[in-house]
Amino acid sequence: MEINGVLIDDTYAEAFPTWICRVIITGVTRGWAEKAALEATGFATSAIGCPCEAGIEAYLTGEETPDGRPGVAVLFCVGVRVKKGENADEVVKEKVKHVLIERIGECILTAPTTAVFDGLPQAALRVPVKMNFFGDGFQERREVGGRKVFAIPIMGGEYIGEEEFGAVKGIAGGNFFVMGEGQMAALMGAQAAVEAINDVRNVILPFPGGIVSSGSKVGSNKYKALPASTNELYCPTLKAKVPHSKVPDGVKAIYEIVIDGLDAESIKKAMKVGILAATKVPGVRVISAGNYGGKLGPHQFRLHELF
Amino acid sequence: MEINGVLIDDTYAEAFPTWICRVIITGVTRGWAEKAALEATGFATSAIGCPCEAGIEAYLTGEETPDGRPGVAVLFCVGVRVKKGENADEVVKEKVKHVLIERIGECILTAPTTAVFDGLPQAALRVPVKMNFFGDGFQERREVGGRKVFAIPIMGGEYIGEEEFGAVKGIAGGNFFVMGEGQMAALMGAQAAVEAINDVRNVILPFPGGIVSSGSKVGSNKYKALPASTNELYCPTLKAKVPHSKVPDGVKAIYEIVIDGLDAESIKKAMKVGILAATKVPGVRVISAGNYGGKLGPHQFRLHELF
Amino acid sequence: MEINGVLIDDTYAEAFPTWICRVIITGVTRGWAEKAALEATGFATSAIGCPCEAGIEAYLTGEETPDGRPGVAVLFCVGVRVKKGENADEVVKEKVKHVLIERIGECILTAPTTAVFDGLPQAALRVPVKMNFFGDGFQERREVGGRKVFAIPIMGGEYIGEEEFGAVKGIAGGNFFVMGEGQMAALMGAQAAVEAINDVRNVILPFPGGIVSSGSKVGSNKYKALPASTNELYCPTLKAKVPHSKVPDGVKAIYEIVIDGLDAESIKKAMKVGILAATKVPGVRVISAGNYGGKLGPHQFRLHELF
Amino acid sequence: MEINGVLIDDTYAEAFPTWICRVIITGVTRGWAEKAALEATGFATSAIGCPCEAGIEAYLTGEETPDGRPGVAVLFCVGVRVKKGENADEVVKEKVKHVLIERIGECILTAPTTAVFDGLPQAALRVPVKMNFFGDGFQERREVGGRKVFAIPIMGGEYIGEEEFGAVKGIAGGNFFVMGEGQMAALMGAQAAVEAINDVRNVILPFPGGIVSSGSKVGSNKYKALPASTNELYCPTLKAKVPHSKVPDGVKAIYEIVIDGLDAESIKKAMKVGILAATKVPGVRVISAGNYGGKLGPHQFRLHELF
Repeated sequence: MEINGVLIDDTYAEAFPTWICRVIITGVTRGWAEKAALEATGFATSAIGCPCEAGIEAYLTGEETPDGRPGVAVLFCVGVRVKKGENADEVVKEKVKHVLIERIGECILTAPTTAVFDGLPQAALRVPVKMNFFGDGFQERREVGGRKVFAIPIMGGEYIGEEEFGAVKGIAGGNFFVMGEGQMAALMGAQAAVEAINDVRNVILPFPGGIVSSGSKVGSNKYKALPASTNELYCPTLKAKVPHSKVPDGVKAIYEIVIDGLDAESIKKAMKVGILAATKVPGVRVISAGNYGGKLGPHQFRLHELF
Repeated sequence: MEINGVLIDDTYAEAFPTWICRVIITGVTRGWAEKAALEATGFATSAIGCPCEAGIEAYLTGEETPDGRPGVAVLFCVGVRVKKGENADEVVKEKVKHVLIERIGECILTAPTTAVFDGLPQAALRVPVKMNFFGDGFQERREVGGRKVFAIPIMGGEYIGEEEFGAVKGIAGGNFFVMGEGQMAALMGAQAAVEAINDVRNVILPFPGGIVSSGSKVGSNKYKALPASTNELYCPTLKAKVPHSKVPDGVKAIYEIVIDGLDAESIKKAMKVGILAATKVPGVRVISAGNYGGKLGPHQFRLHELF
Repeated sequence: MEINGVLIDDTYAEAFPTWICRVIITGVTRGWAEKAALEATGFATSAIGCPCEAGIEAYLTGEETPDGRPGVAVLFCVGVRVKKGENADEVVKEKVKHVLIERIGECILTAPTTAVFDGLPQAALRVPVKMNFFGDGFQERREVGGRKVFAIPIMGGEYIGEEEFGAVKGIAGGNFFVMGEGQMAALMGAQAAVEAINDVRNVILPFPGGIVSSGSKVGSNKYKALPASTNELYCPTLKAKVPHSKVPDGVKAIYEIVIDGLDAESIKKAMKVGILAATKVPGVRVISAGNYGGKLGPHQFRLHELF
Repeated sequence: MEINGVLIDDTYAEAFPTWICRVIITGVTRGWAEKAALEATGFATSAIGCPCEAGIEAYLTGEETPDGRPGVAVLFCVGVRVKKGENADEVVKEKVKHVLIERIGECILTAPTTAVFDGLPQAALRVPVKMNFFGDGFQERREVGGRKVFAIPIMGGEYIGEEEFGAVKGIAGGNFFVMGEGQMAALMGAQAAVEAINDVRNVILPFPGGIVSSGSKVGSNKYKALPASTNELYCPTLKAKVPHSKVPDGVKAIYEIVIDGLDAESIKKAMKVGILAATKVPGVRVISAGNYGGKLGPHQFRLHELF
């Protein structure tokens, strides 16, 4: 299949389950809400080495937030492994709670003019995230936009926050590869894809600027202790050195877009608009996707079926 | 003391030691280096709840980086507690190494076009940070700008990185308070201070947008298990409710600027230009600072001595 | 009337007709389209002293542009005075054409990766804007997304542009005033209003950052030759010096938001969301609006009727 | 000559005189000063079709501005043709005055919190720019940071402005070409150059984002009335169609960087750091420059002599 002269590989992206909370951060202006969101979603690229995967999902107008102020919605995606005999819901709640307390307490409560609301009020699984003790007894219960919140006196004024967040089983690891005739072509193709996906609701791109430069394979051939290592089959500088390289002729750089989202439909929408955007960039040659023969996860997004 | 009509309190900021590495991130453009830096320095506001404190120290021209590309220097500040009988250097190295491996490996190695260099090559304490195994045997030793680096083949091309970083004993917790006649006056005063400090080398502002909205006291009066809670003496909404409130009459909001830096001189310079900038903003009334009677740390920065 | 504790004056904004073209600029990324748009809409605050009023109306996804690339829609608003005996349409066409040729030719054709399309294809009045001669005979007719364009060979590759633009009779000078207890409160109130209005389609805010700091009255009391001078009745520093000052007690600064738009409905929507946003900002006291007793223009937007 | 593997053409950039004023804009924060600067320097790419060429020269700390607030320095470059018998100084003053009154009056006086100061106080030629009449008699003389200014009451508070600006004979049209193996390589090379030049004082890049996409030749071969048309010898898509094409083999796109500056040394410095930065970008192949055989102007900057 070709789109705008770019070959779309006949393959699929393989993805896996994750637990996701949606936190709405409001501020006196969008810019101040965004500063909190950037701090709160940093160091959150990959569940392999970070406590969670996180990113900005959407910018919200005052009409879309409980307190009528401008806001930013962020998704926190937490990988949870439940052992036999454990109560799955309890394990999920405990792990997600830990992440939210740290991220909200250190990065949002501390940011100027912020308030925090649950972005998934319909979700069945409810995670308690108690910040109000920070008020040392001076906190008050209040209602804002129909939400039960605590108002905590702080030096900057008051912090307003909900203390229960919905969590849903979402999907991590939706992805595609942007392959270019040169590094700048691939990079700009990836950036165009990121911009397009930024307008899609329910998804985030957890990596820096939305792009992965060093896509990995599970484990390592040479160093047995490593959980992940470079995906040499897709390294352009190794094309002549490794057998069965998957780097197409004429491709000099490959960037990966990784997508986490609340549901399969949103990830498909994101993959579609992202790929379309990348194919519009001069020098982009091939779009492909990463999978592991079904070993990694139960979700498969076949590129050709997106169009 | 008054500056530009703003009262400068006769008090001091109390600060404490921290271990600091300076990491230079370069990229094909400054913007791409910055994206990596933002991801790597997120979730890093306070050592109380984050793995480290971190922030952007400076933007570097190509003349200031080993590979001649534009760059961003970031500081990672790691609190280390050495127990009796432990080898202090080894404890520091181990803890700092852990932070750097996570931050570089997850947030910079993964970002497009980045390279990484040590920003404190003269520091005596050397911390090894081995990324090259990610190359799964395809990595190569190389020299770039006089630095010994590894070149690791990745999907986006090559990642270039030094694998040893200097660490120095720096200072965390330099601070001052910006007090305003209204919340917006205090906020803009704090923002002007942040902008001014952003031009000072050797320091970072680890909090979101450089500002702390919810300054805390150590411990809690009501909830004994809490490590920190709201500093009720400085909460404007509690002025009439708590005895001995330290909120001056006419002050409606207080923002704190927290500064970490490589040395006392740089922190003093940052405090000075920050305070001067804040006093220029209409509606800023008082500048003060936070201290704990000498309990928190050995460094004291007296406001009046800055000018 | 009070909204969120802020007094809404019982008055109206007075506005007047202007001729508007909507130009869609696309680029390889949104950022590159935006750079062209910023250059093209600069020096375009007020028809009194600038060749036109202009601003960014909307950011467009690839699904909203003729060539499928990300884009920015800008409005150019041209005041046209038709003398007796002149053919109104011809006068409008001539004056609008002159503005578009300069703005597109100098600021968009020169910007990297841009293409230009008509954003008002249904408008009856058609303005020819011939850029293709720049191709010196090497230009070619082509069709892109159903639009008839010229492809002009340039050093950067090809410039793609439509050469006919719809023009409609719109409205300039929709406005409201944000009055604050301090300058920073008024400024942040105005900024929150600007952010909210930026999400409304069909309107622009032509002034720097969307805000007017020095609202004027028509003419001058002291210097007869001046077309406009400071509106002393609304100057807070003159409250005690001029009789009949309209500055409410407790107000220290007033910022004006000026709105140009394609139709009255869009201007009303912009005024409404902008005022609501401003009332959410601490320290904003009063919202009012500017009018001239009906002398300036036929459009009147009464504040109380917006809600 | 080769730098970082990129061929540097053995040619020169040809430039010509222009009259330059340097205007310092300060604001409550750098961001607000910048908004005014962007508006004031828009529609100012080329003296051929714009009233002036203009751009941001530098961002200034409070230590570098007369009022101690953060600021932005902008250059306005005005081409002046003096006819026989005219008093050159008077002609220059008149034309520059006209540009400054419009740009300051419409774009800076109207912007929130701005003040304006002369950035060339040592220049012998003094241009009067009277804004104070806008105060309608309520303006006051004052001194700020050793500068004689007027304070004009406005709705936002007070506007502070100097009313005399130095003008010097500077240089317009310093330039170089960035040629890439693909469009994205050339574009990113040009962008890296722009970023590097942004750190050089005394110069501006008047075009959108600092880059010219459609470099022109003087006049037209086919349409005699045109003042300028596409430079077909440098159009990659015409390489096979025009005799004597100057597009090197393997080059697919060419972007031009145009530099205006106060003096030859600053332009040379800008060209040097810009070219060095461009050569670091993967896929950049050749650096060249534009000249007209000495017909356009008296200044020649030979590329090989920069290094």
